[in-house]
Amino acid sequence: MRVGDLGEFGLIAAIRLRLGLEREGLVRGVGDDAAVFRARGGEYYAYTVDAMVEGVHFDPAYASWHSLGYKALAVNLSDLAAMGGGAPSYALVVLGLGAEVEVEAVEEMYRGLRDCGDQFGCAVVGGDVVTSPERMFVSVCLVGALQGESFLPRDGARPGQLVAVTGTLGDSSLGLRSLMSGGGSDAYCAARHLYPRPRLREGRKALEAGASAAIDISDGLLRDLGHICEESGVGARVIMEDIPISEEARRVASAMGEDVLEAAVSGGEDYELIVVAEAETMEGLVEAGAFTVIGATVSGKGVELVDRQGRRVDFGRCGYEHFKER
Amino acid sequence: MRVGDLGEFGLIAAIRLRLGLEREGLVRGVGDDAAVFRARGGEYYAYTVDAMVEGVHFDPAYASWHSLGYKALAVNLSDLAAMGGGAPSYALVVLGLGAEVEVEAVEEMYRGLRDCGDQFGCAVVGGDVVTSPERMFVSVCLVGALQGESFLPRDGARPGQLVAVTGTLGDSSLGLRSLMSGGGSDAYCAARHLYPRPRLREGRKALEAGASAAIDISDGLLRDLGHICEESGVGARVIMEDIPISEEARRVASAMGEDVLEAAVSGGEDYELIVVAEAETMEGLVEAGAFTVIGATVSGKGVELVDRQGRRVDFGRCGYEHFKER
Repeated sequence: MRVGDLGEFGLIAAIRLRLGLEREGLVRGVGDDAAVFRARGGEYYAYTVDAMVEGVHFDPAYASWHSLGYKALAVNLSDLAAMGGGAPSYALVVLGLGAEVEVEAVEEMYRGLRDCGDQFGCAVVGGDVVTSPERMFVSVCLVGALQGESFLPRDGARPGQLVAVTGTLGDSSLGLRSLMSGGGSDAYCAARHLYPRPRLREGRKALEAGASAAIDISDGLLRDLGHICEESGVGARVIMEDIPISEEARRVASAMGEDVLEAAVSGGEDYELIVVAEAETMEGLVEAGAFTVIGATVSGKGVELVDRQGRRVDFGRCGYEHFKER
Repeated sequence: MRVGDLGEFGLIAAIRLRLGLEREGLVRGVGDDAAVFRARGGEYYAYTVDAMVEGVHFDPAYASWHSLGYKALAVNLSDLAAMGGGAPSYALVVLGLGAEVEVEAVEEMYRGLRDCGDQFGCAVVGGDVVTSPERMFVSVCLVGALQGESFLPRDGARPGQLVAVTGTLGDSSLGLRSLMSGGGSDAYCAARHLYPRPRLREGRKALEAGASAAIDISDGLLRDLGHICEESGVGARVIMEDIPISEEARRVASAMGEDVLEAAVSGGEDYELIVVAEAETMEGLVEAGAFTVIGATVSGKGVELVDRQGRRVDFGRCGYEHFKER
């Protein structure tokens, strides 16, 4: 069987079976936003990696070298946020590129990495540069301290809890479509795509408040909430009208003839957090201003999108998966 | 200026200037075998990453998927060894590959990763799989505990100390040449190339004994010892006849018409350790059986290769550098 037949998630499942996950100090292995290990002093560290490949994850035609560096680090910090982590954190950067690339471009990329790191308490402390003739790639690895001996898992959701998200959804994918079509007037959505803001503060708050589960939205709301449901053994119901959508996203979608709701539920790369918590816990988080409740977990499995009248809403496409045809 | 004009080491130097290396808990940043950070409990962690690209670092024509996985982890454990680190350690693996790759091949690679990890106290705890249509790449990131609040730096050498190495040198590059020429009879050297053995025990011993500096040999003895000299502000003199060379390497070199000494000083990918220490400290390490003294550090700069009569020995080529023509 080829990797293309299995798809990204099937491949990850196959790989999981190959790994031995018992090791001194290992608290959480494959299958969450980040691995978690315990230092001898007792504190927990979240540990994660993400790679971006030219022509797959980004296109130099619209993504500047600066934004590329910024985003490569930001998406990892987003994983750290989804575990409830914060600062300090340390990043290693692997850069694969061809000999014809301008040195100034590489320096610009590192400026982007540093700008993101400075903003979120992360130091780029090393890495590797290798030859990659056809396509550039950048891979960032991150280790960051968690508060105390706890973290926000994917598998901690229970039926009857509330589901909330940070920020607004769909901006990033609409920004990408706008960038791809050469539109320069949608600066807000474009910036949301090129310079995602990792929700470290919100993740830490959710952990401290005692939330049960979290994930960051990289593949799309329905798909990522689906990961929580699958790992936790629950289902979820999301109320369409409650999904937070920005005015800018509505405007861009309308101008481009796109469905803003589809972008919000399946667009991906929002790097907002989905958090699941008991109603009481969630109340505090919502009051603090950073979270919007969009639904609830239920017994059963799968994620259902409904309108306020309880009618099911369907979309053909539900997020991005590597190796699979869209 | 293009990356190809600057070369790997020039590029790394340019990148170093772009990074802000002040961060809470950061003990050692860019410019060593690994970064080092201090956990809140006080212990030190070494943290490193290495990437391998198809057609650049390996050729599937002679490197099995199993060996690829094993080696990708082993070269990182070698960096950990060069810092004086040990177990437990935790690895994250980024795999870039095309949709046409067989799933069984990927599983075989992870079996190699796990075999190496099981042997050296390292757990593969997560990673990322991404589309890379033209070339496969594998990048492994490693974090591992050091003993107490110390590590073996590159910049700790002082003039008048002894220089020693573990194992024998040149096997790997001769094994590679033998593999490339289709020769299957040189199993020892081929295995040294495909399955390098990280010197974790020896690195830990050197740290405990109080050695001053260390590096692992990835680019070649002269070049890697040159890194120690440059970072420490010293020179070094290596005595040709004292370099440990295996019988197998002599045999392969002779059969292939290669210069075994050139392979030993510039071949690269031996993943043995170079350690610099005071004579007294070194005595203990040599007696323990794992180290061979090959020279000494001197005032000045640069690495000089001499014979026992003190005559200078020259080679045209002195190790591998990315982006540069050989």
